[in-house]
Amino acid sequence: MKTRRGDLPCPHVERSAVVDLPQIVKRRILRYENGVTEQREVEVVTEYALTVFVDGQEFVTLVCTPSDLEDLVIGFLASEGVLTSYEEIRSLTLSEEDGVAYVRLVTPVTIDPQMFGKRYIASCCGKGRQSFYFYQDAALAKPVEVAPVIAPRQIVSLIERMQRASDLFRTTGGVHNASLCTVDQVLLSRFDIGRHNALDKLYGYQIREKWTSDKLVIAFSGRISSEVLLKVAKMGIGIVLSKSAPTALALQIADDLQLTTVGFVRRGAFSVYTHPERVQLL
Amino acid sequence: MKTRRGDLPCPHVERSAVVDLPQIVKRRILRYENGVTEQREVEVVTEYALTVFVDGQEFVTLVCTPSDLEDLVIGFLASEGVLTSYEEIRSLTLSEEDGVAYVRLVTPVTIDPQMFGKRYIASCCGKGRQSFYFYQDAALAKPVEVAPVIAPRQIVSLIERMQRASDLFRTTGGVHNASLCTVDQVLLSRFDIGRHNALDKLYGYQIREKWTSDKLVIAFSGRISSEVLLKVAKMGIGIVLSKSAPTALALQIADDLQLTTVGFVRRGAFSVYTHPERVQLL
Repeated sequence: MKTRRGDLPCPHVERSAVVDLPQIVKRRILRYENGVTEQREVEVVTEYALTVFVDGQEFVTLVCTPSDLEDLVIGFLASEGVLTSYEEIRSLTLSEEDGVAYVRLVTPVTIDPQMFGKRYIASCCGKGRQSFYFYQDAALAKPVEVAPVIAPRQIVSLIERMQRASDLFRTTGGVHNASLCTVDQVLLSRFDIGRHNALDKLYGYQIREKWTSDKLVIAFSGRISSEVLLKVAKMGIGIVLSKSAPTALALQIADDLQLTTVGFVRRGAFSVYTHPERVQLL
Repeated sequence: MKTRRGDLPCPHVERSAVVDLPQIVKRRILRYENGVTEQREVEVVTEYALTVFVDGQEFVTLVCTPSDLEDLVIGFLASEGVLTSYEEIRSLTLSEEDGVAYVRLVTPVTIDPQMFGKRYIASCCGKGRQSFYFYQDAALAKPVEVAPVIAPRQIVSLIERMQRASDLFRTTGGVHNASLCTVDQVLLSRFDIGRHNALDKLYGYQIREKWTSDKLVIAFSGRISSEVLLKVAKMGIGIVLSKSAPTALALQIADDLQLTTVGFVRRGAFSVYTHPERVQLL
């Protein structure tokens, strides 16, 4: 088949099972500010999982914001060296409801399974379809039954101390921090350029030292994605505090796994997104 | 073999090829502030790639900050459900110089290659060993030869406009932004909960629309890691601007690939880390 530039028709892009894919959802939370707690409706970003098949073979699952999905697939495949021009795509079918994209190339590729694990990973923080989380991780992430109760001043203080613990962050601005805490003190702080790595360093220490989880709290500098939430649940810890925002999928999982999610801990204020029964609000 | 809790000796942890693994390195940059440019020495975080073998099989490559590496390995394996207690590890050998960790379990696991690609991905933003980048990506990321020249006020203005382009970021605080720009205007803005996805959405558009790269600039909200830098290089774009910090490995690659890296673009000031010849500094 000739592939002279400009000679081919545009690739056939088709959307099937088109559904409404919201990029944000509304959620009722408790907002604590200046000693006052009030109910508030806020917007939370969604996480959408898109599994990409190339010439019939599963290639990657991208966890993403559901917009510009064709461009995401094309750009990802170009980044991975699978294609260099639009004309190399014979067809691209996107099934929005199922979270699946099927790509057929003009010159079919065969993916070496050896390379698969090395190169064709999720772009960032991606692991599986929405349902995948629940089925595959169900065995590891059980509902958290025992957790402490925490006061507003303790929430604010733990985040402040987590921040202070990381000199590297202050001087270079390039790392995420995570701390294992009780409600009263920071026990252990770790930092890493990778969000998940900072948590894994805490988890590894917890396992080595056989710390039980029932009095522990996690303070984290980064966004609370579904993966971060699941990691905290696997650690058996019932309260996660963050300077940053949670995603909608993380909150859904936190609802189910009985995890208290506190976000936007900044300047003495914070937002409680899930299971507020563990926060001593007046 | 009996694995009664507390009955086993501590796992054998060994470090071989111990080398100095700096978490930060110093670098001379140009700092622009209030119309004045001066040379400055700043600290930049490093990226270290650690490939983990479990019972002889390659499992994952974690791109991380080189500290607490044993805990990182243990915590990652626990997160992935490979182990639940320290006693399940027969031995853990860490070769710091080679960036390799060998784990032997009391009950050896066999990794299903089908599962490998799906589950056992890098924790976040990880893809390969340091050398891997250069060898595997060399074919895709060529030195950027043609790129525009940009003025300080244009740098500041593009980052401001990238920020304004994202309503979702303002309301929810949960996404990263990336914009394809010329020196004078923002052409296209994309956002995503995944840093790399925002860039892939731009790349996909660029490929579809066959935009040439020689007049383009990328403005990005997130940290400039080696993977972000490589993606910009693959797009053939010679200037990347960010509100955030770059990593040392990203700068090393930028040196080689002739990419101009501008970081910490905030409140009218910024830092030029590599190839300042494209920035019109007085």
